[in-house]
Amino acid sequence: MTRVVPILLTPGPLTTRLETRQAMLRDWGSRDDSFIAMTAEIRQRLLAVAGGGDRHVAVPLQGSGTFIVEAAIGTLLGPNDKLLVLINGAYGERILTIAQRLGRRALALRWPENQAVEPDLLEQTLRETPDITHVALVHCETTTGLENPLGAIAAITARHGKAFLVDAMSSFGALKIDIGRTPVTAVMASSNKCLEGAPGLGFAIVEKTALRAAQGNNPSLSLDLYEQWQGFEKNGQWRFTPPVQVAAALLAALRQLETEGGPEARLRRYRENFDILARGMERLGFRLFLSPADQAPIIATFHYPTTAGFHFPAFYQALAAEGFLIYPGKLSQADTFRIGCIGAIGGDDFRRLLQAIEVIAKDWTNTKSR
Amino acid sequence: MTRVVPILLTPGPLTTRLETRQAMLRDWGSRDDSFIAMTAEIRQRLLAVAGGGDRHVAVPLQGSGTFIVEAAIGTLLGPNDKLLVLINGAYGERILTIAQRLGRRALALRWPENQAVEPDLLEQTLRETPDITHVALVHCETTTGLENPLGAIAAITARHGKAFLVDAMSSFGALKIDIGRTPVTAVMASSNKCLEGAPGLGFAIVEKTALRAAQGNNPSLSLDLYEQWQGFEKNGQWRFTPPVQVAAALLAALRQLETEGGPEARLRRYRENFDILARGMERLGFRLFLSPADQAPIIATFHYPTTAGFHFPAFYQALAAEGFLIYPGKLSQADTFRIGCIGAIGGDDFRRLLQAIEVIAKDWTNTKSR
Repeated sequence: MTRVVPILLTPGPLTTRLETRQAMLRDWGSRDDSFIAMTAEIRQRLLAVAGGGDRHVAVPLQGSGTFIVEAAIGTLLGPNDKLLVLINGAYGERILTIAQRLGRRALALRWPENQAVEPDLLEQTLRETPDITHVALVHCETTTGLENPLGAIAAITARHGKAFLVDAMSSFGALKIDIGRTPVTAVMASSNKCLEGAPGLGFAIVEKTALRAAQGNNPSLSLDLYEQWQGFEKNGQWRFTPPVQVAAALLAALRQLETEGGPEARLRRYRENFDILARGMERLGFRLFLSPADQAPIIATFHYPTTAGFHFPAFYQALAAEGFLIYPGKLSQADTFRIGCIGAIGGDDFRRLLQAIEVIAKDWTNTKSR
Repeated sequence: MTRVVPILLTPGPLTTRLETRQAMLRDWGSRDDSFIAMTAEIRQRLLAVAGGGDRHVAVPLQGSGTFIVEAAIGTLLGPNDKLLVLINGAYGERILTIAQRLGRRALALRWPENQAVEPDLLEQTLRETPDITHVALVHCETTTGLENPLGAIAAITARHGKAFLVDAMSSFGALKIDIGRTPVTAVMASSNKCLEGAPGLGFAIVEKTALRAAQGNNPSLSLDLYEQWQGFEKNGQWRFTPPVQVAAALLAALRQLETEGGPEARLRRYRENFDILARGMERLGFRLFLSPADQAPIIATFHYPTTAGFHFPAFYQALAAEGFLIYPGKLSQADTFRIGCIGAIGGDDFRRLLQAIEVIAKDWTNTKSR
């Protein structure tokens, strides 16, 4: 157990503002007018963050990010559809697994974990495999922090007349996704990453025409996004008991996002966090896993140092004792760890982190010189 | 909008203790030791509340009560199994719907909403339909507040060698379910009813042998209880991001349940709430929907009064303005409303409620006499 409440330098759940957590201090009747009004405001604000208008609708769902991705796949793909998943990390693989387990026809294009998805290869595949109906992409791969070329992929997918599903789990609220201009069928994300809410809710921003056409597709009652949408349309209520406090925290967080200046201002703060971290870590001898061109300022993946004495579990515990929780790597091909730059944290937190790492790293060098 | 924070006299989400909500005031890293320890304590305490030992295991899951019911059905039933659902309300119907949508073989025995499930008919059906493999029962039907005869149904189901699935959503933590003595394959419930936690988590207490045999059954990645269990067994962590604050609230609530004296003491408090309510409402001319023999002291369903001037939406709003949220009925066969007796509320709350109803009801009589 750590002695202090730590700062979460993870891909989420992450550090939230006190006001966000304070929004969870009361109870709500989930079918009462005041909660119905909260739900409506959450849905409207989520749509606005994505740059959406009348063509799209925001559909929140209970559960983690994986639940909303599965809900979107299971609802938007019918038995005769065929999904192409563009994969360069664990979350791309997860989309493929979800589709296959649900018995949907699916295939994949794969790139190494340190390489962005290539639009040319998509173009070629869509030409060669015309029965593909849907394309899925992870916007920012949480596995590494890599930002895939959303705009280029969206344009090609649209030109071929395919539906485009975007897992924006760790980008939504910071990296730009303007669905008013970029052709996107559905964007899926969750309450607890760049929106800086508490975990427990996911949501999809979906084209109404796609959702309407998806009636009856999903074998799951709980994860049926069409019926979830219809529930909201009918009386503004959730079909099944919502996590009322988590919803309240999300609403507080969405209002704070506006106060901060919207996604652009938030991205600026994250980029500042990332730059301080990256420069400082470089000075301490750590190497980033990704090349700068592919790196989003969301999550930084570092190679293990080659210094003798470095042992990840001990490094993790030493940082935890100083009040910083970092994240292990999730790569198949390299030994890495991850430091999240997102959440209600700023430059000072990263400067203190770097001081702590510097102190801890001295021991490794000492070990070496002995 | 109501002006004050209302008391929730609903089937949930309901009024929780301030300490429970205060447990949500901090952030946790979901893969950190301190959260792993919280998860372990939650699982152990849930098992203990059910009277479970080594044969069973507690598997929490993100989402609402319906999510955990669907997870249990989808995981524990294979394609060759056959489910018999005993139905006398909306939540029994929901179990059947879930099974049918998942393509599982299922049939139902139905009783009127004001009548308990009859063990004799189950006995006869199991004799006549030997390929039934699983029986499902709603312990306390939230539709009405009716308590079904769990012990008798369990005994018959066990004698026939069938698996027994219990939806204990609105009974768990208050009505007795001693799985150490009563033969039960799985009990499903949620954080936000008689356990008095915040909504956002469900859980199943499942026989390990049944769970082991269920590997590969569930087409859903998110709702696969076998894999969820295996995730906890591997490293004590949740497979997918857990609602950390909701989990913290549940742990606080489980500790308070122990302090209160366990499920028996909680049931005593609820029964006192119910008795005060029932006597007071009778005095005011309201009639309970259920006969006393079938009534659990969890949710009271009342017929609409025949008094001229009664109009449910106006009654609801008038009570809301006084700080009490009640619930509409959910019956196909009668006009009713519901008042929950569960949550962190006591006799004084019900006495104040009755005073408020008495004042509001005077207007109806006046309307009549005019």
